[in-house]
Amino acid sequence: MKNQHWLDEIKWNADGLVPVIVEDVATAKVLMLAWMNREALSLSAETGQAIYWSRSRGQLWRKGEQSGHVQQIREIRLDCDEDAILLIVEQYGGIACHTGRHRCFYRKLQNGQWRIVEPVIRDPAEIYHNPGR
Amino acid sequence: MKNQHWLDEIKWNADGLVPVIVEDVATAKVLMLAWMNREALSLSAETGQAIYWSRSRGQLWRKGEQSGHVQQIREIRLDCDEDAILLIVEQYGGIACHTGRHRCFYRKLQNGQWRIVEPVIRDPAEIYHNPGR
Repeated sequence: MKNQHWLDEIKWNADGLVPVIVEDVATAKVLMLAWMNREALSLSAETGQAIYWSRSRGQLWRKGEQSGHVQQIREIRLDCDEDAILLIVEQYGGIACHTGRHRCFYRKLQNGQWRIVEPVIRDPAEIYHNPGR
Repeated sequence: MKNQHWLDEIKWNADGLVPVIVEDVATAKVLMLAWMNREALSLSAETGQAIYWSRSRGQLWRKGEQSGHVQQIREIRLDCDEDAILLIVEQYGGIACHTGRHRCFYRKLQNGQWRIVEPVIRDPAEIYHNPGR
């Protein structure tokens, strides 16, 4: 039986989830915030591919399964309170966001408004029609 | 009356909170994950200093109020789902973590164990005894 004590050290929230910050090893940018349950984290560590828990769909979410924009895991880190994870990844295609942008944090607060400050790299219609191209 | 529509665009969770990723402008490292309620984010934006909601203490937490390690906000960003914030800050003293390390994500998963891979910069006993020195 495999040693998975490291999973027991995590303080899962009331829903059995932990927030996961995802950073791009190439650009050093924060790409997105996602969530994992125990199974998702265990599978991610085992396979080296980022697998999250989709709260909206209520199921495991293999990042890139539709878009082809998979994330290869380079590092898994834990914070001092054991209630947040930092994942350092190689982002396939350089696109993490479903809007076709490099990352999900593309809006910046300026003069009391959220302004889009990062470009769409690839049209989402194209991404989800021809995944992984 | 001040325009705070931008606060209404955020999808606060059931506890009225949003997770906040904090990145250091100097090192481009993710320092910590914290939480804000509406008041904390409004005050943070107004004052330019990071103010979080302490879930353990159930009150506003002016980052650095005890340690002197305040965070000056450079950017506030919102993600595509409007349920996560990215804060880019200047970290006073270069220490974000209460353990005296640069950041809270100082443990890395290696061979099924969380290994400490970042040094203590300043003894916490010293930090909390002589804040801000």
